[in-house]
Amino acid sequence: MLAEKVMARRYLRDFPIGPFWRVDSPWHNVKFYAEFTLSAEDTLYFSWEGRISVYFYDLDKYLYGFDGKVTLPAGRYKMEIWLYNPEGLPCLKIDGKEFCSDENVQVSYNQFQLRNSFVCDCGEMTPNTFCLPKREIEALSQTPCEGGTVYDYGKIRMCFASFSGCRELPFRCYFGETLAEVMSDEYCEQISFFTPAEGRYDVPVSKAFRYLRVVTDSPYSMSVKEEYNPSAQSIAFRLENKRFMQIIEVAKHTLSVCDREFFLDGAKRDRWLWGGDAYQAFKLEYFVSCDYAKIRRNIIALCGKSPVVTYINHIMDYTLYTIMSVWEYYSFSGDAEFVKYIYLILEEHMHFVLGRTNEDGFLYKQPNDWVFVDWGDLDTDGEVCFEQILLFLALKSLYKLGDVIGGNTEQYKLRAKALRAKIDEVFWSEKRGAYLHSRKEGKTGDSVTAYANVFAVLYRFADREKTEKIKKTLLYDESVPEITTPYMQSYKLACLFEMGEWKKAVQEIMSYWGGMLDGGATTFWEVYHRGETEETSCEMYGRKFGRSHCHIWGASVLYLIPRYIYGICKDIACGETFELRPILALITDSQIEVPLKRGTLRVQATKEKITVFSDEIDGKLIIGDIVYAVEKGKPITLDRRTRVKRNTAASRLKIHS
Amino acid sequence: MLAEKVMARRYLRDFPIGPFWRVDSPWHNVKFYAEFTLSAEDTLYFSWEGRISVYFYDLDKYLYGFDGKVTLPAGRYKMEIWLYNPEGLPCLKIDGKEFCSDENVQVSYNQFQLRNSFVCDCGEMTPNTFCLPKREIEALSQTPCEGGTVYDYGKIRMCFASFSGCRELPFRCYFGETLAEVMSDEYCEQISFFTPAEGRYDVPVSKAFRYLRVVTDSPYSMSVKEEYNPSAQSIAFRLENKRFMQIIEVAKHTLSVCDREFFLDGAKRDRWLWGGDAYQAFKLEYFVSCDYAKIRRNIIALCGKSPVVTYINHIMDYTLYTIMSVWEYYSFSGDAEFVKYIYLILEEHMHFVLGRTNEDGFLYKQPNDWVFVDWGDLDTDGEVCFEQILLFLALKSLYKLGDVIGGNTEQYKLRAKALRAKIDEVFWSEKRGAYLHSRKEGKTGDSVTAYANVFAVLYRFADREKTEKIKKTLLYDESVPEITTPYMQSYKLACLFEMGEWKKAVQEIMSYWGGMLDGGATTFWEVYHRGETEETSCEMYGRKFGRSHCHIWGASVLYLIPRYIYGICKDIACGETFELRPILALITDSQIEVPLKRGTLRVQATKEKITVFSDEIDGKLIIGDIVYAVEKGKPITLDRRTRVKRNTAASRLKIHS
Repeated sequence: MLAEKVMARRYLRDFPIGPFWRVDSPWHNVKFYAEFTLSAEDTLYFSWEGRISVYFYDLDKYLYGFDGKVTLPAGRYKMEIWLYNPEGLPCLKIDGKEFCSDENVQVSYNQFQLRNSFVCDCGEMTPNTFCLPKREIEALSQTPCEGGTVYDYGKIRMCFASFSGCRELPFRCYFGETLAEVMSDEYCEQISFFTPAEGRYDVPVSKAFRYLRVVTDSPYSMSVKEEYNPSAQSIAFRLENKRFMQIIEVAKHTLSVCDREFFLDGAKRDRWLWGGDAYQAFKLEYFVSCDYAKIRRNIIALCGKSPVVTYINHIMDYTLYTIMSVWEYYSFSGDAEFVKYIYLILEEHMHFVLGRTNEDGFLYKQPNDWVFVDWGDLDTDGEVCFEQILLFLALKSLYKLGDVIGGNTEQYKLRAKALRAKIDEVFWSEKRGAYLHSRKEGKTGDSVTAYANVFAVLYRFADREKTEKIKKTLLYDESVPEITTPYMQSYKLACLFEMGEWKKAVQEIMSYWGGMLDGGATTFWEVYHRGETEETSCEMYGRKFGRSHCHIWGASVLYLIPRYIYGICKDIACGETFELRPILALITDSQIEVPLKRGTLRVQATKEKITVFSDEIDGKLIIGDIVYAVEKGKPITLDRRTRVKRNTAASRLKIHS
Repeated sequence: MLAEKVMARRYLRDFPIGPFWRVDSPWHNVKFYAEFTLSAEDTLYFSWEGRISVYFYDLDKYLYGFDGKVTLPAGRYKMEIWLYNPEGLPCLKIDGKEFCSDENVQVSYNQFQLRNSFVCDCGEMTPNTFCLPKREIEALSQTPCEGGTVYDYGKIRMCFASFSGCRELPFRCYFGETLAEVMSDEYCEQISFFTPAEGRYDVPVSKAFRYLRVVTDSPYSMSVKEEYNPSAQSIAFRLENKRFMQIIEVAKHTLSVCDREFFLDGAKRDRWLWGGDAYQAFKLEYFVSCDYAKIRRNIIALCGKSPVVTYINHIMDYTLYTIMSVWEYYSFSGDAEFVKYIYLILEEHMHFVLGRTNEDGFLYKQPNDWVFVDWGDLDTDGEVCFEQILLFLALKSLYKLGDVIGGNTEQYKLRAKALRAKIDEVFWSEKRGAYLHSRKEGKTGDSVTAYANVFAVLYRFADREKTEKIKKTLLYDESVPEITTPYMQSYKLACLFEMGEWKKAVQEIMSYWGGMLDGGATTFWEVYHRGETEETSCEMYGRKFGRSHCHIWGASVLYLIPRYIYGICKDIACGETFELRPILALITDSQIEVPLKRGTLRVQATKEKITVFSDEIDGKLIIGDIVYAVEKGKPITLDRRTRVKRNTAASRLKIHS
């Protein structure tokens, strides 16, 4: 429901653009079931949205004249509540001394399949009225222009503009990510044209902008309110390297603008929830805030309802990522309840996918399929190797999830095994030292792109020998096209880190994200070709200002830095432990705080020593081949030079030969 | 959407009772596609509900600043319209000189499957605002009672009550089908208790009642508005037999009260759309008004959306009837377009059903299944023969529908063939001369009920020899329990007519429906045990006034009379012809008009002659073994005694030996 509302907010000028995939609504007619015991008389207070009927089983009691509260004597009760809300989600809250509505309340939409209720932490709001809070912001500068004024708010934010003290004269408002966009009458992508009635006008839909141009002959006073995500980002950095700090700050702001009710791809343009974009955002989220409920919410909205008859977002890769994301969620959280909840619909997605494979078990582009991979001049016809590797990873994720909940996973294991062999047989080129890009009409071309190879290394699809060859190809083969999005750039850099090429990786972070900063970025972009500046980087889809300058995948360094520079692994034993393999050379004079499944992990480094502290979870610090135990609640400090512990509480665990 | 709203109107006192099955909502985010040619400049006027985006393909033109109309020069256009309506059905109307929105406009909910649009004939209303009209009615009498007044409106109708000129004092309104119900403070099933603010109060939900008791100390003036179905019943009778005329009139009124936006089972109680009740209502509808759109609407609402995970209304028989109803609809209408539209979801229902059969191919009651058959003390555990016969008929209906649209029907044919043999093998009892009621744990009991046998005869499942035996059993075997609902009573009487036992059948109509009249009925009831009166026939479900006294299946004589007494067959050659086999002895001094697929069929009988006239369709009049052609537009008159035609336009077709 919320996903539906949020995704309906995309506009091109005054032209609304709804998602071009199926968007599911909630069931309107549901029943809640609860059993509880009262040791003394108690009054239950009900709040709800929709039309309610309350029924007690053993009393055989329809509650007539129901006024929102019921007083019951001590006893055991079995209650059934029918809720019908034609306008939205039927939602219910019950407060009593001994019984409150929680996830133990069962719910069904009249199909006999009972599920736990979702508990929604939305304070005074309800799941239907939920919205993000707003706060007033001020322009950094305002400059007169022909017929009006240009306001500069310093960086892109999601805002609502209101006008008061107006006369009944036409207003033309242009909202832009860049100055060029906001000055373009014809091509500016976000506009609001209106003539205020009764002296005021509130632009009804939030706009994402840094610049705002108001053209009118009317007097007015303007208020711009930022709609912001109030949940703080828990991750914290303090780095000596100013450039790095700046990249991190801009990435954090970029994420905060796109991290709304759901993870939106971009602030200005789509404002939709996309499976691949969200999959990457989850990787950040585990380090930035580690809000499991948020990740679950995104996954549920992406999976939608049965029946599955298209790919998620209509994109082949995006269904596969979404299946993978659930396994990763489980690895970080150990939340088997959610796996149980989502598994059936994941299986339905997988059955849809497998129903589209050919005799080799490969996916190939069929009419209406969108094979995305990445922006750029990519040939995605035929059987694309990258998609087969994702399919393998999705199959593997699904069977591991099935094993968690005791599902029948044999078929997925067989498919995965056969697929792995077939991929190696068809796509691996010993000559190129890489997986080839694709096969069309039975022939693999000679073309090599980074994608399949990056994922083959990153997800340990390739064996050690192949990985070594891929490394050389990625580093030195200039026929491999450059990546032009932070989206795939971050997977590539993760891969370089994994292969030990951290110098190259850091250099790339500095030159790619740093390059955007040099170009004037205050948020990171959807696409970046080296050398572009903010004002020269706006074109996309043949539209002069089609490109998004505040794109969630632009923030992906927020994953690379903690995961690879600090070497933090959180997805071990379902998040119940962690490992830390910092690249010592990169972390002089720095400090980082990262949320764990419980509590926080702090790493503090100076030129002389490193201190690690986890308040609630035990883990390991691994330097080279030495493993130090990190016990919860006990800081461990290491002399960088001698690698000897300064405190005595922790003990050296193990020395590799 | 409308089905959802309508079915949410069931209340027990002030306790809302939502349907206990899944109710589907419309897709909110849809796209319409249209191609058209304008020979000259034209302006298209758009009306819509939701949020609209209009896009022209070849112009590559998003319509900015759209104000509901577009002026286009002559040319060929391809238009895409995105409509998003979070609150209901996204609906659209386009008016132009050369292009208007009709069923050629394609629509999808973003799953690539384009379908024709539905054209909704709702005048000034929209599919979302649609409601039935209202008209003021007056009480026939009013009688003081303790604390108030009882009003008698003469017969049950669906009405809204409004009060004005009130003081701010409590009102207690009781709405009843019978006097006893309306006088019962505790058990009256429909109530409205309120204290008017600002001098007036409108009871928000329509109530079905004949009597209304208002208890208050306040003065008031009351207005009761009947909500009525404005589409006239086309069927018309004029019979000499007063008793018959009275039965027909009461049946027509009963039907008119339950025939609302959908065919509701009853006016007072469920007010829901049930598959079996609707299936029978369709049989009436072909004779009463023959509104094909209404039948389609009911079938669509019953079938719901994919995925199918329960029986329709949770009732085994009701899924099977619904599949059968589509074949019958096709037989009457020849509407292959609708068959194409509905076939996929019918197949899904059938796959669900077949997934629940056992090794013999039989359906049996599983947890959560409701095997209804009929009200009464019926044992529905195990494998019920009646359900297997319905399954056979549903399979047959499905494969015939599949053959109409070129589907792959082989599997259904094989299943049907095997099932037929197995039913005969397991359930036919030569000794009893009947199909046995059921088999439990491998053993058929000795019990025989009418249901399986009636359907076996009616749908020609039983061969001639078995039919003869069944006839004897139904007529003379007193161990077969009596039927207590007009629902199954009408199938049984149809069966008697089919077996030539029309004297017995007519006698039953007179005694069963006539019996309700004798008991004081002004509408026909859900259940009738011989000898009951209106005031002694109210109990059901252990509730004193639980029974419905205005039930759609109470009107089923409206099918029996034209179909069997006048012998009108309309489902021949998809309704393009008809046959008429009147029982001459029953139609002296009478007149009937019945709608055909096109035009009307009129039969007029006196003691001397019979005249038949069809204005638009050719057919046959068959008396004994003589067949007379009835040419459209040409009345044919027959001398009853000599059976010689009085006019010369029609010719004798064929004489059987």
